Order: sequence, then structure tokens, then C-alpha cells
Amino acid sequence: MTYCVATMIDAGIVFASDSRTNAGVDNISTFRKMKIFERAGERVLVVLSSGNLAMTQATLNGLDQQNRREEAGRSLMNVSSMYEVAELIGAALREVRDRDGPYLQQGNVDANASFIIGGQIGGEEPRLFMIYSEGNFIEATPETPYFQIGEVKYGKPIIDRVITAATSVDDAVKCVLVSFDSTMRSNLSVGLPIDLVVYERDSLRVTRCRRFDEQSEYIQTLRHCWGEGVRQAFTQLPRLEWN
Amino acid sequence: MTYCVATMIDAGIVFASDSRTNAGVDNISTFRKMKIFERAGERVLVVLSSGNLAMTQATLNGLDQQNRREEAGRSLMNVSSMYEVAELIGAALREVRDRDGPYLQQGNVDANASFIIGGQIGGEEPRLFMIYSEGNFIEATPETPYFQIGEVKYGKPIIDRVITAATSVDDAVKCVLVSFDSTMRSNLSVGLPIDLVVYERDSLRVTRCRRFDEQSEYIQTLRHCWGEGVRQAFTQLPRLEWN
Repeated sequence: MTYCVATMIDAGIVFASDSRTNAGVDNISTFRKMKIFERAGERVLVVLSSGNLAMTQATLNGLDQQNRREEAGRSLMNVSSMYEVAELIGAALREVRDRDGPYLQQGNVDANASFIIGGQIGGEEPRLFMIYSEGNFIEATPETPYFQIGEVKYGKPIIDRVITAATSVDDAVKCVLVSFDSTMRSNLSVGLPIDLVVYERDSLRVTRCRRFDEQSEYIQTLRHCWGEGVRQAFTQLPRLEWN
Repeated sequence: MTYCVATMIDAGIVFASDSRTNAGVDNISTFRKMKIFERAGERVLVVLSSGNLAMTQATLNGLDQQNRREEAGRSLMNVSSMYEVAELIGAALREVRDRDGPYLQQGNVDANASFIIGGQIGGEEPRLFMIYSEGNFIEATPETPYFQIGEVKYGKPIIDRVITAATSVDDAVKCVLVSFDSTMRSNLSVGLPIDLVVYERDSLRVTRCRRFDEQSEYIQTLRHCWGEGVRQAFTQLPRLEWN
């Protein structure tokens, strides 16, 4: 499975993705699910992928080829809005589905794939989209400033409790990593390393980028402190009086 | 949807169920999903139901009829082990599936239904089972002393963190209700009232039984304190140093 999350705050967008893929529990691998398209000073696009790995890789490779083509067709690196970026990804996904979908269906293989795409293009505000497996998409709004794909349930409550537009970058990072911790505790098919990117509003470049693996001291500390904190919160709850 | 949970501890078994049913978001009702079969001093059986309401009601009515029959066939009230109780429920569910399943299939209606059954019959230890939609079942063990049915994900982490065999009744009750709070916050189709029963080992009668609705002060206090505690635990987490 997969867990990816991205959340908009006033200060920018925080992105994170896990790295575990599995075809059955007996076939587990590590693949990066975050891809960054950057032209410093002009645009930063961060794509998070979930679902059938061949589908998501083919989609992203198609987009890469568009970027490299000599003729001046639309591509992620030249369109002037994040909306068009979402359109291009949706279209690339549909192309791969049209081509590969029938073969996957023959083998009863799940062809679903979805993306989170966020970032900023010079002249626009930072924007965040979720692209469905069907190639259509929705945009985050102040009421719902985050998207998750993959195993979304375990990590949702802490995001709902913490994230608002005013949340600081530090808190948003902590929140996203706690959300990963909860997810990884409960679903073995979501696993380290975690890729984390903080896009700072109007920077138009990637300034903060980290990968956390099993040896990461911060993840271990966070896991420990969070576990202790939750247990303490639990201990302090009043007991039910039965009368 | 539904959320039901039951957890074994050394001191007994704690059972809880929500009461919301829905056929689409425009058709929401309240139905009790907990049924108690008790013969004080001899046996206590608590059944929690999830899934298609007509299926679970028909199954439980079938079992009720068995109990009332004059001739001495096997029934929940006369078998001598919890294992046989689980067998009877599984068989009753299969009977209803065989009878109603094909009609539901014609209408593309989900016929799934599952049960948690726990309690104690004099001469045995307390035991806890989960009965799958197919009528087969598994029993809780010290390593996994709890079962959930319905919307299981949101409320699972707190149970995993807190419950062990040595957990006190008070803590198990708090834990189960926090688990409900997390679930109800994230899934609107799980809702109050919550039915709660604590079966105390070797009591062979129901001694503690409560229903919590919107007016319940304890649920409101728990919700508030838990929210505060989690926020405080979050605030105390160390921030990531970017260097």
C-alpha cells in the first residue's frame, strides 16, 4: 500500500510520502513515491503517487518526456497555472490507463492510481490538487486544506485536530510525521523511508527536503514522545462513575 | 455503517456498540446493535452486530426462536460452551444468507453481516469470538484480546496502545469510549447512542450496563479531555531541526 499526504498552510505546503510497495505480503520493495519538478525562481511542482506502481511510473515518465520534447507542446515545465499542471497529469494518467488498462483487467490486476500535486508557479498562489484514478481532480480549499492518498484512515484524525491555515511549518511537519507514525503502526504495508518536502510560499524553489529512515533519530524520538504523550493523555481521562 | 468493539481483559469483557444505521446518507436511523442473552448465575452472552440490518436481525430472531422452542434442540440457552454458541450463530447466519442472499444479489444489495459474541457459560472461562459474514469464526487470544466490526480503523490505534490482559475495567471502558470518539469524529455513519456492557468474570450476570446519548455528560467530558490531552501531547513534541 502507500501513504501520502500534503497539507496547505499559510506559510506553504508540506508534502510527505512513504516508500513501501507490495505485491502481496511476500513481495515488498522500496520505491520513492515523491517526484519534484523544479525550475528555481519559476516553479516548484511536487507529485505524490499512490496505487499501481507501473501506472504511476508510466504516467510520470510520460510527463518527463513531454518536458524534454523540443517542440513547444504543453508540459509541466511551461504551463502557466497549477490547474493546467493537474490537467496534464490527469491526461497522462488517462493515456496510460487507455493503453495498459485492458491488459491489467485481463489479469484481474487493480489498475487504480492517484496523485497529489502541489506547488507554485510564479504569478500564482501555491495550490494543491488531488487527481483521481479516473484522471479528474479536485483542489484543496481553506476548509479542507489537505489531501491524503493510499491508506488514509489511521493518519487522518491528527491532521483534522491540528491543521489550519495558521498552523506553523514546524507544527505542520510534526503533524504530518505523527500521521505517518499512526499509519505505519497500524498498516505494515506503509513503511519507511519517509520523504518530506516543505515548500515555502513564494520561494519558488525547494528549500527544505528530508528523508527519514529506520536510523532517523527524529522519527524515533517523535514516536517515543507521541506514545508517551498519548498514554499520559489517556491516564488523565476521568473514569466512568457507575453509581 | 457501524462500529462495535469487544475486548477481553483478566477482569472480564467490555462490549460496546454504536446505534447508527444508514441506507445512503439520506436514510439514517437508530437501531440497537447489542443483544444480551442472560440466565443469571448460568450464562451471559453478548452479541454485537454489523452489516446488513435485515440479515443481522433475521439471524438473531432465528436464534431467539430456537431458544423458545419446546423440544430440546440445541440453542444459545442450553449449549454448554461458548464455542457452540459461536457455531449456532454462524449456522443461523448461513441459513439467512441461503434464504435471502440470492434476492439481495438480484438487487445488488450488500448481504454482508458479521457478529462479535462474547460472554461466559458456567464451567468455562469467559470467551470472545468474531463471526465472519461466511458463518465461520475466530476466537480472541491473549495476543489479540479484542475484536472490532464495522468501521474498524479510526478506533484501532488507541486499543492497540492501551489494552492488555492486565488492563483494569475502568481503563478498558475509557479506552473503548475513546475508540468510539475517534471513530465518530471521522465517520459520520457511526453515531450515538453507544451501548456499553461490562461483563465481570465469573459473575454470570450482567452487572454493569450503560447507554450514552448526546446528553451524556461523561461522553462530553471524555471528548473534551481527550481532545485537550492529544493537543497537549502534540505541543510537547520536539520540532524537527533542519540544520
